[in-house]
Amino acid sequence: MALLDRVLLGPGPSNPYPEATLALGAPLLGHLDPEFLRLLDETCARLRTVWGTANRRTLPLSGTGSIGMEAAFANTVRKGDVAVIAVNGLFGERMCDVAGRYGAEVVRVDHEWGQPVDPQRVLDAHPRPAIVAAVHAETSTGVRSDIAALAAAVRARDEGVLVIADCVTSLAGSPVLIDDWGVDLAYSGTQKCIGVSPGLAPFTVSERAWARRVPHPPTWYLDLGLIGDYVSGGAGGGRTYHHTAPVAMIASLHAGLGRVLEEGLPEVFERHRLVGTALQNGLEEMGLKLFAAEGHRLPQLTSVWVPDGVDSAAVRKRLLTEFGIEIGAGAKEFAATVWRIGLMGHNARMDRVELLLGALRKVL
Amino acid sequence: MALLDRVLLGPGPSNPYPEATLALGAPLLGHLDPEFLRLLDETCARLRTVWGTANRRTLPLSGTGSIGMEAAFANTVRKGDVAVIAVNGLFGERMCDVAGRYGAEVVRVDHEWGQPVDPQRVLDAHPRPAIVAAVHAETSTGVRSDIAALAAAVRARDEGVLVIADCVTSLAGSPVLIDDWGVDLAYSGTQKCIGVSPGLAPFTVSERAWARRVPHPPTWYLDLGLIGDYVSGGAGGGRTYHHTAPVAMIASLHAGLGRVLEEGLPEVFERHRLVGTALQNGLEEMGLKLFAAEGHRLPQLTSVWVPDGVDSAAVRKRLLTEFGIEIGAGAKEFAATVWRIGLMGHNARMDRVELLLGALRKVL
Repeated sequence: MALLDRVLLGPGPSNPYPEATLALGAPLLGHLDPEFLRLLDETCARLRTVWGTANRRTLPLSGTGSIGMEAAFANTVRKGDVAVIAVNGLFGERMCDVAGRYGAEVVRVDHEWGQPVDPQRVLDAHPRPAIVAAVHAETSTGVRSDIAALAAAVRARDEGVLVIADCVTSLAGSPVLIDDWGVDLAYSGTQKCIGVSPGLAPFTVSERAWARRVPHPPTWYLDLGLIGDYVSGGAGGGRTYHHTAPVAMIASLHAGLGRVLEEGLPEVFERHRLVGTALQNGLEEMGLKLFAAEGHRLPQLTSVWVPDGVDSAAVRKRLLTEFGIEIGAGAKEFAATVWRIGLMGHNARMDRVELLLGALRKVL
Repeated sequence: MALLDRVLLGPGPSNPYPEATLALGAPLLGHLDPEFLRLLDETCARLRTVWGTANRRTLPLSGTGSIGMEAAFANTVRKGDVAVIAVNGLFGERMCDVAGRYGAEVVRVDHEWGQPVDPQRVLDAHPRPAIVAAVHAETSTGVRSDIAALAAAVRARDEGVLVIADCVTSLAGSPVLIDDWGVDLAYSGTQKCIGVSPGLAPFTVSERAWARRVPHPPTWYLDLGLIGDYVSGGAGGGRTYHHTAPVAMIASLHAGLGRVLEEGLPEVFERHRLVGTALQNGLEEMGLKLFAAEGHRLPQLTSVWVPDGVDSAAVRKRLLTEFGIEIGAGAKEFAATVWRIGLMGHNARMDRVELLLGALRKVL
């Protein structure tokens, strides 16, 4: 069959950086090959830079972004622990589901979709939670929440709380500063602003979360105690085989991160900011209304109301078939009324903005 | 850095088929793109052929082989269920660990490493287990066990038992006939005989195991009820987003399976048989002793004793640095005394046999 070169402007996956695609096709190394272990170490070091952390346990988990969410809760929740979870979109909801499965008593703090998380409401929800969790960049709504303020407020009252942040859509697109913010566990995906195919979940754990981890979680595959012995060396400094690492995907992540760091994180963030602003201005000039609350909009993911009387699915289909452009539907109850447009990683470019605006003008 | 083109003759990963590598670099499709869903459906259909099953729920799980083991137990074990697990190597041991984490009362039936599983001993271990599990091709020892006989014996006594089989090293290298054998859940990895990079776990579930699955397992990521709604359509036939599928890896699996089926499964098995036999004969002609019991040796994975007085690690290092050949050490207590040599998928070729035997002659 003919290959299709789509322009992926949905909520992810995005088109990868060319370096990341080339690395996928490089000759395969064994998962215990000294050269692969060097590449893995360098990948973890690059991830530390992108996460803004010195955490020793910073690594790519062998699954897509959601596996990071699962690992975060599986390794920290003890039966009956109170987990206060801010919900302002689909991925906050998912956190509640996952935390509950691992035995947490979930206190869910609902916000209107399209609004950011309110730290004070999260704080007021429970006097003594073990865990507080929130989504930094809600992929379902295009909203950024202030994780720094949330973590600071939580910590000011109780130093012992573990803070978990979902950074799937923010990492390498907007500033993420794990150590400065005081976040204990955070996870991301490779297919958004990092500019790599989906299949890995960049993950980081603070020393105090590591010390307090569940010693024998229900999941073997995501038992951080076992994975840590392979990735960063065990107590004796030696590496222990856990599972066969997805070597090609890790080589691709290594290359994608290399491209991001070569450009420079401040430059990458500025690029995302500029193109996101240009898209959002362009949509408003066309008379469309943005969904996410002003002042809290992600540049890398724009949510916009479908104009009255327009068939959302028909427009997306025409964009795909006539222009090869994928954009996303809204999530859940907004499936027919909102579009989500991503400008992430390699697609955070002005030519993508012009292409999308031009195609949309034709179709509407 | 310079790229290294290793010859991967360890227990996996193996060098992928060229078609599988090329597919990794193809333009990326979105995980909800109609073209990708078509490719996913075709991948599942190809997997059914390779598994020898009509199971509707036959799919690639988004993780490496071990995630298949985890999914099998996570979705079937109810607290206190008796799981009789045959152990004749590392992966049988791992099954006990995983099943125990999900609340099974594990009855472990130990066999000498290097020997196949004895169905009668497994049968005698408990009068009324809920689950019986065994490894078809033990990657740690190079031994094949008779899953057909085991499943038949178990079923003859009690139709209700769920049978779980680890086929990580066997699938697409030796005949696997899920429906004929009466296996309920089976999993594999892509990096062995299927000839694709590591990162996916081909998985299949029988209708009766599906009907009896745990409705709300601790793991969200591996909840088959949720994944099934994306892969094969939910009750209403529609697809529901679960997690972002690793699209590049699935495209690669599609291509690898295409290559295997184009050659033909009987031809692929015969190729593995011929090269495995040639390698095993060649090693014996050099005076080396094979580890696995005669009559139960896998052609795709040969285990051989390190000759007395030979430094196992030094030989492996010389093979790697002087010849670019990776072979594997033994597992656990056999780390220094056994080598494992894989001839899997694209590497099941006579030139690999000659290369390895020649290099080994030089080094020993």
